[in-house]
Amino acid sequence: MESEDSSVSCEANATLFTESQVLDFSGNPYSVSVLKVGYCVSQPDGSFRADGTVTLVTGPRTILVDTGGPWDRDLLLTTLRERGLETGDVDWVVGTHGHSDHIGNLGLFQKSTIVVGCDISEGDRYTPNQLAEGKPYHIDEHVSIVPTPGHMGHDVSLEVRGTSTGTVLVAGDLFECCGDRESWQALSENAALQKVNRKRALSNADVIIPGHGLPFMTHRNPQDHDSW
Amino acid sequence: MESEDSSVSCEANATLFTESQVLDFSGNPYSVSVLKVGYCVSQPDGSFRADGTVTLVTGPRTILVDTGGPWDRDLLLTTLRERGLETGDVDWVVGTHGHSDHIGNLGLFQKSTIVVGCDISEGDRYTPNQLAEGKPYHIDEHVSIVPTPGHMGHDVSLEVRGTSTGTVLVAGDLFECCGDRESWQALSENAALQKVNRKRALSNADVIIPGHGLPFMTHRNPQDHDSW
Repeated sequence: MESEDSSVSCEANATLFTESQVLDFSGNPYSVSVLKVGYCVSQPDGSFRADGTVTLVTGPRTILVDTGGPWDRDLLLTTLRERGLETGDVDWVVGTHGHSDHIGNLGLFQKSTIVVGCDISEGDRYTPNQLAEGKPYHIDEHVSIVPTPGHMGHDVSLEVRGTSTGTVLVAGDLFECCGDRESWQALSENAALQKVNRKRALSNADVIIPGHGLPFMTHRNPQDHDSW
Repeated sequence: MESEDSSVSCEANATLFTESQVLDFSGNPYSVSVLKVGYCVSQPDGSFRADGTVTLVTGPRTILVDTGGPWDRDLLLTTLRERGLETGDVDWVVGTHGHSDHIGNLGLFQKSTIVVGCDISEGDRYTPNQLAEGKPYHIDEHVSIVPTPGHMGHDVSLEVRGTSTGTVLVAGDLFECCGDRESWQALSENAALQKVNRKRALSNADVIIPGHGLPFMTHRNPQDHDSW
């Protein structure tokens, strides 16, 4: 496996929110909350147990990023209700990529605009966009779907600007977790492309919410900003 | 767009079941029934309306291939019940690939073994397999999950041998529909790879159930069989 320079790993400067387990990033107009922290743990029999991180973005629009695996259905319903939300209140569901531990519960959100990778749909109507050509899709001036392929062919992330912790990137499996230097490439369909997008993410976001671990801070230099 | 030779298109020899609209292929021990015929229709505003074909395989094991989009939830429940099945009776759910019009209802099948592309899981336990390395996964001696990538990076199809119409391949978007010569490549992440797998499918299967159209017969020459 190709070794990687520190510029595309969170290990160089990043701070994992391990001690405080920070899962909520308040802001105006949008706040970001991790509803379930994803994981990926190898088992002695060669299998592994895995689930994708589930994140809720609240503000002028309510946006769920990834829905966990099919087994998360009840947890998802309960966790949303604890926040006063029914599934019909979720305006957008963004599946960062089409793996079963991330898009297992799309069927709960029949009234939402559904994004999976580069496809955007309302019911069975799929609307034109340029995500597959590398161009962001702006939900509004604060929140954008940005193309971050590599783990699969058409992954996306959700960028939320203006929280009290700065720009938060809900990144799916662009990052498995903080300190994923040994693991992400083995899970990548296109490691060279993913490497470019990891570097860009570390330049553009202050907080990254990875697909299988706790949020981490990038401590980026804002002068390195590299627009999507 | 690259033009293609007739050997990878159904148009050369294939017969679409248009007049009789054959959706059921009985067999022993397995029968195959299309529960919903997928479609993909361009709209004047540049959007398109699309849904994936949903197929049920019944026999020693009950296998659902693709679940349609999130909007198909009620149709899926109703159609299964008309055949005397509850979601808990479905042993395997095979999502041919991770697009939202094919895997919109995984959350209905929490007790099933779930396949999406090359990932096989029971709950959050993902089991080792070699689909991503190009090797089939045999559910039993009659039914196999076969790797057919190209439309996405890790697509699979379900091959059912021994029906009264011969071998049936439930192919997801390996084929959009019979006569898709003008459309499949524009939707492919890797057209060269998909072309190889289309040719192999036309050599190995007597009936192909495509992702967005009616089943069609290949009229293959059995001597051309090219094992997965």
